[in-house]
Amino acid sequence: MENFTYFNPTRIHFGKGQIKALATELPQAARVLLLAGGGSIRTNGVLQQVQRALGARVAVEFFGVEANPDFDTLMKAVEIVRREKLDWVLAVGGGSVADGAKFVAAAAPFSGDPWEILTSRGSVVKSALPLGVVLTLPGTGSEANIAAVISRRAIREKLAFLNPLVFPKFSILDPETTFTLPERQIANGVADAFTHVIEQYMTFPVHAAIQDRFAESVMQVLVEEGPKSVRNPKDYDSRANVVWAATWALNGVIGSGVPQDWASHTIGHELTALHGIDHARTLAVVVPSLLSVQRATKAAKLLQYGERVWGIREGSEASRIDAAIERTRSFYESLGLRTRLRDYDVKPGVAAEIAGKLKARGEVNFGERGDITPEVVERILTLAA
Amino acid sequence: MENFTYFNPTRIHFGKGQIKALATELPQAARVLLLAGGGSIRTNGVLQQVQRALGARVAVEFFGVEANPDFDTLMKAVEIVRREKLDWVLAVGGGSVADGAKFVAAAAPFSGDPWEILTSRGSVVKSALPLGVVLTLPGTGSEANIAAVISRRAIREKLAFLNPLVFPKFSILDPETTFTLPERQIANGVADAFTHVIEQYMTFPVHAAIQDRFAESVMQVLVEEGPKSVRNPKDYDSRANVVWAATWALNGVIGSGVPQDWASHTIGHELTALHGIDHARTLAVVVPSLLSVQRATKAAKLLQYGERVWGIREGSEASRIDAAIERTRSFYESLGLRTRLRDYDVKPGVAAEIAGKLKARGEVNFGERGDITPEVVERILTLAA
Repeated sequence: MENFTYFNPTRIHFGKGQIKALATELPQAARVLLLAGGGSIRTNGVLQQVQRALGARVAVEFFGVEANPDFDTLMKAVEIVRREKLDWVLAVGGGSVADGAKFVAAAAPFSGDPWEILTSRGSVVKSALPLGVVLTLPGTGSEANIAAVISRRAIREKLAFLNPLVFPKFSILDPETTFTLPERQIANGVADAFTHVIEQYMTFPVHAAIQDRFAESVMQVLVEEGPKSVRNPKDYDSRANVVWAATWALNGVIGSGVPQDWASHTIGHELTALHGIDHARTLAVVVPSLLSVQRATKAAKLLQYGERVWGIREGSEASRIDAAIERTRSFYESLGLRTRLRDYDVKPGVAAEIAGKLKARGEVNFGERGDITPEVVERILTLAA
Repeated sequence: MENFTYFNPTRIHFGKGQIKALATELPQAARVLLLAGGGSIRTNGVLQQVQRALGARVAVEFFGVEANPDFDTLMKAVEIVRREKLDWVLAVGGGSVADGAKFVAAAAPFSGDPWEILTSRGSVVKSALPLGVVLTLPGTGSEANIAAVISRRAIREKLAFLNPLVFPKFSILDPETTFTLPERQIANGVADAFTHVIEQYMTFPVHAAIQDRFAESVMQVLVEEGPKSVRNPKDYDSRANVVWAATWALNGVIGSGVPQDWASHTIGHELTALHGIDHARTLAVVVPSLLSVQRATKAAKLLQYGERVWGIREGSEASRIDAAIERTRSFYESLGLRTRLRDYDVKPGVAAEIAGKLKARGEVNFGERGDITPEVVERILTLAA
């Protein structure tokens, strides 16, 4: 096991009716920016529950945070925070809203150009407003970590930042608030969470037994409960397990003291940028293909995963690895996520195009061994055709 | 899954040489009480590493915290904190020292009689000094939770208190500092941690899939690595996995949103009080017997545990439950912990004696269903003869 520091101070209120915890989590004198997305919380009862819990507190509502939250949209929220002297940020929505809230919390007290928060990957952040999250869409794990991904459509950029100052002070996870989500969104959330585990687990063994078994646990729960929860959206137990699994997929625990990959995310982001494919769906395309191309260096973990998550115990090592990759592909497909570029009408030429873009930007030699070169990216995307 | 609130803000520095993190965790101006046990840290290099990291900070050393830390001993430390106006407590040792540090941190600023901290189970605690832990003996989980058990030999009491104010700000877990522990202590630690999981897991299912699988993961790691680590004390990877597993056995995660038992601890404490048997060894005696007596109400979890932790898949339900209990007993024995009262020269009369004591104190109807009456306690201890 490698040395590590683990820290996660977010308080989680989990379960039915937990939105009422807002009443004690927020100071009575808090002046709150309520950040939200497209407005579904107006019709599914969530906004009403939040308003009731906020009571007499000053709360300014800002709707319109989009999927892949945009810098320019969020800067309008920052202006409101500054003008109205708000001192708390409350995200009510999914991962995009939570990510947006982290940016607003860091940008509002920032004296320089807030875009530097992104270009510095968060290192310039020295203070942030306190923030809380009411999560209505599981998947990204943003409710209990220090990361946010922000897009700036005006200059075609999409950057991430990380800083412990934007840990949510609290997050409220009521699985019932997710019952009315479109099937596509919950399926994407399950696939996103599953892939977060793959990125931190499918590397090489370092005798990190707790991290390995917890990662396998999260994947097993997503495999058992994910497709079921997509089909039966109002099955509370199933959805609750999906929501809690998604938090653990990216709250720092399974990634502590182990090598990490994240190449599928890097490649997937390019597919979203070029073709507007949902983030989770790009991962469903890239992961099976990346595992095939990298099967030699990931062999030990692929075999362990095959056995422990899928019960694959028979046959040669090569055939067990084949089976593990095939089960991974089938899992994405069982959620309704197609796993080939042709399913999204993307032409094979994209392989060379993306490899070229990454090379031009100097994004080379990534993955847990630094061996994913532009040539490897091209092989991965060619195989994904 | 039941509703729950989960919160754990302790920062963990894990790995070789991590004691140096003290230099950044403690403020430069901190005035530190260094609390320790019997003195082994003087000879194994730990104290030297701590002193080097403390540098020029004011640090008063207080040695002599005993196993089952004593109220009167700790009150001497409280006096020193008050007299020297110390403002940080640093535990350097195992669970007893960490528990003691929690008490000192809460008692020093307390204006009433500090014994009330125990008799109120922690509810009177309104402030506490910040505390940190350098853990040199895994098992209790005290390094990352809000609980402490304090004895008061003068009046033959042993009470626990819990309060979020005594969460360690940080804990340093360097597995190498545990290499020189006596075999008996590491074996006890493994058994203690394993039993913490049993108490939170072996109840009845509530569709808490992450909690169940994490609990099973911790047990699997302790089963695979525990006996190995007892035999090969300087195998870093094995010991590191034991240390990290023990933290997760009692840091709040696997117990969130599920029923809990803790009857084995209640009964075990009485055996320690009457016969001075090591805490972990009382658990090794009580658990197999309690599982047998309660096999009907715990059947579903016993079967799941048998299959997932021990691979027991063949045979009738009754025989699979028998096998699961037998494997549990063998596991304690494999660590060197005997599992019968006669192994400790305790006469069968203890069953009626302890049942009578619990009844007299009104400690009746405990366990996850409140069905452990004094009569059940007597049956459990009779079976353990």
